Amino acid sequence: MHVLVIGAAGMLGRKLTERIASDSGLFGDDIDRVTLVDVIEPPVPAELSAVARTMTLDLSEDGAADTVIALRPDLIFHLAAIVSGEAEADFDKGYRVNLDGTRLLFEAIRAEGLRQPYRPRLVFTSSIAVFGAPFPDRIGDDFLAAPLTSYGTQKAIGELLLADYSRRGLFDGIGLRLPTICIRPGKPNKAASGFFSNILREPLIGEEAVLPVEDSVRHWFASPRAAIGFFIHAARLDLARLGPRRTLSMPGLSATVGEEIAALGRIAGAKAVRLIRREPDPAIAKIVAGWPADFDTRRANSLGFRAETGFDELIRAHIDDELDGRI
Amino acid sequence: MHVLVIGAAGMLGRKLTERIASDSGLFGDDIDRVTLVDVIEPPVPAELSAVARTMTLDLSEDGAADTVIALRPDLIFHLAAIVSGEAEADFDKGYRVNLDGTRLLFEAIRAEGLRQPYRPRLVFTSSIAVFGAPFPDRIGDDFLAAPLTSYGTQKAIGELLLADYSRRGLFDGIGLRLPTICIRPGKPNKAASGFFSNILREPLIGEEAVLPVEDSVRHWFASPRAAIGFFIHAARLDLARLGPRRTLSMPGLSATVGEEIAALGRIAGAKAVRLIRREPDPAIAKIVAGWPADFDTRRANSLGFRAETGFDELIRAHIDDELDGRI
Repeated sequence: MHVLVIGAAGMLGRKLTERIASDSGLFGDDIDRVTLVDVIEPPVPAELSAVARTMTLDLSEDGAADTVIALRPDLIFHLAAIVSGEAEADFDKGYRVNLDGTRLLFEAIRAEGLRQPYRPRLVFTSSIAVFGAPFPDRIGDDFLAAPLTSYGTQKAIGELLLADYSRRGLFDGIGLRLPTICIRPGKPNKAASGFFSNILREPLIGEEAVLPVEDSVRHWFASPRAAIGFFIHAARLDLARLGPRRTLSMPGLSATVGEEIAALGRIAGAKAVRLIRREPDPAIAKIVAGWPADFDTRRANSLGFRAETGFDELIRAHIDDELDGRI
Repeated sequence: MHVLVIGAAGMLGRKLTERIASDSGLFGDDIDRVTLVDVIEPPVPAELSAVARTMTLDLSEDGAADTVIALRPDLIFHLAAIVSGEAEADFDKGYRVNLDGTRLLFEAIRAEGLRQPYRPRLVFTSSIAVFGAPFPDRIGDDFLAAPLTSYGTQKAIGELLLADYSRRGLFDGIGLRLPTICIRPGKPNKAASGFFSNILREPLIGEEAVLPVEDSVRHWFASPRAAIGFFIHAARLDLARLGPRRTLSMPGLSATVGEEIAALGRIAGAKAVRLIRREPDPAIAKIVAGWPADFDTRRANSLGFRAETGFDELIRAHIDDELDGRI
């Protein structure tokens, strides 16, 4: 089996590749080839036994998708995207990478299939950014995609294309709407959602973190570990069970900032909690107020997707995976 | 005021142009220029007092949209599309015309606005084909777009782009999801939905018509007259009232084939009803079973959009508009 990861240098792409490297029987057939694609050189895990090839290219450039698809991978993970803030700031780049890049990938698969039969499995990363306020208390599987950002628009269009290409049998596609990933490893960044991770990650290593919103703010979370679990499960699932609706809101944990902090206190003590500095920022509070807070993900649940059910579990996953089990 | 109609040679495009020609004060300001665009030469109504220009071109061709938008129309009606059956049969043509053509139009407006400030109003024609079974009994304004055809996919993508370009202030857009138009004037055609019109239109002129489904089949209708009313209302409405969700399911009439036939009997007598020949066609019955039957269009209603409320009214509109009031 030949596995292609597009966006392999990103946080989730690297974790997914490491998971593939640690278990060559992950998808039933032995994984004998792995192709890693990104706009920067993707790292190759040392423990990878399959033949690895890296390609540094941008899918939205002429012929790039054709070059990749000419290798005829059996399983494709498409994680590449310009993130929300950048897609909002740079209209052309967002549409070029997130919409055109995705469509060119899908078209390259169709063109390859016209040359000789080819119908890979394709796992597409979407986002809860396809939803825009006003929301019901819990967003169900039948709720409309009405994005309030260009990024969300591009992801919603990707979902529609994924469904149509799958319906026509051009590939076997599944889209995963990821919750906000928390605790996101690495350094604090300027993303409006960054504080959800910062207020846990930094205190766990004895550093201060800034909280710009009220403790009552509620949002929708899954750990990086849960996200990788979604990808693996999506790659193994019998997709005929999906019917024509090919994208699923992934399960997650609906929790308030206050619940995050309480879990931090239980696991790391009051000293860690005292490292959270409250600095209300009305601009961030306003952005976050437009984000979804809770989902009813019964379709994904019934298909066997699983996420954390409490913030303690989510923090422990971070301690295990990023801090070698120690705080 | 300069009005542009794209798709001006189609059934609705012609009726819209005739309506514009009959009332130059239709949109408040005097209409002094009208540009009519289609892939075939659009007819110019004799009674049009504005300066008319026709352009025979395909929006999806290089530079075509730029040529049209260089004229800087104030109000744009975008009705051009490859219909459902053809978009399903010809994948490339459907995506090229319905997706790329629409996006090139939107991009041409953005590019013109970068040269000098420009923010026209744009009325986009969408369709209930953006919805796919399974449905609730009535499809509400929050129900997801999950199309089961490439045409529906292309229209749903157009809606998303319309919302994003409007949100960014690049134009002031509104999308109208039209019900199935009934009674569609002209000759019987091979569209799967054709019989809904045929079983009324043909008997009204003494001709036989074939009914391929059960009398209990329910569907969602509006007359051509109501559709033109939607376009005019959309062009006049304060679009700030829409908020970020820029496309609306238009009001219509939910009725069964049996109710159609009963109305025909009331208006044209038992002799007309006897011209309907029942020839069950399981293939058509199966296609139609996947179509929406009823909508809750409270957003459009509250914004003042109006359609027929009974099939008698819908048949009388046809007799007035197509048969000079006589049967």
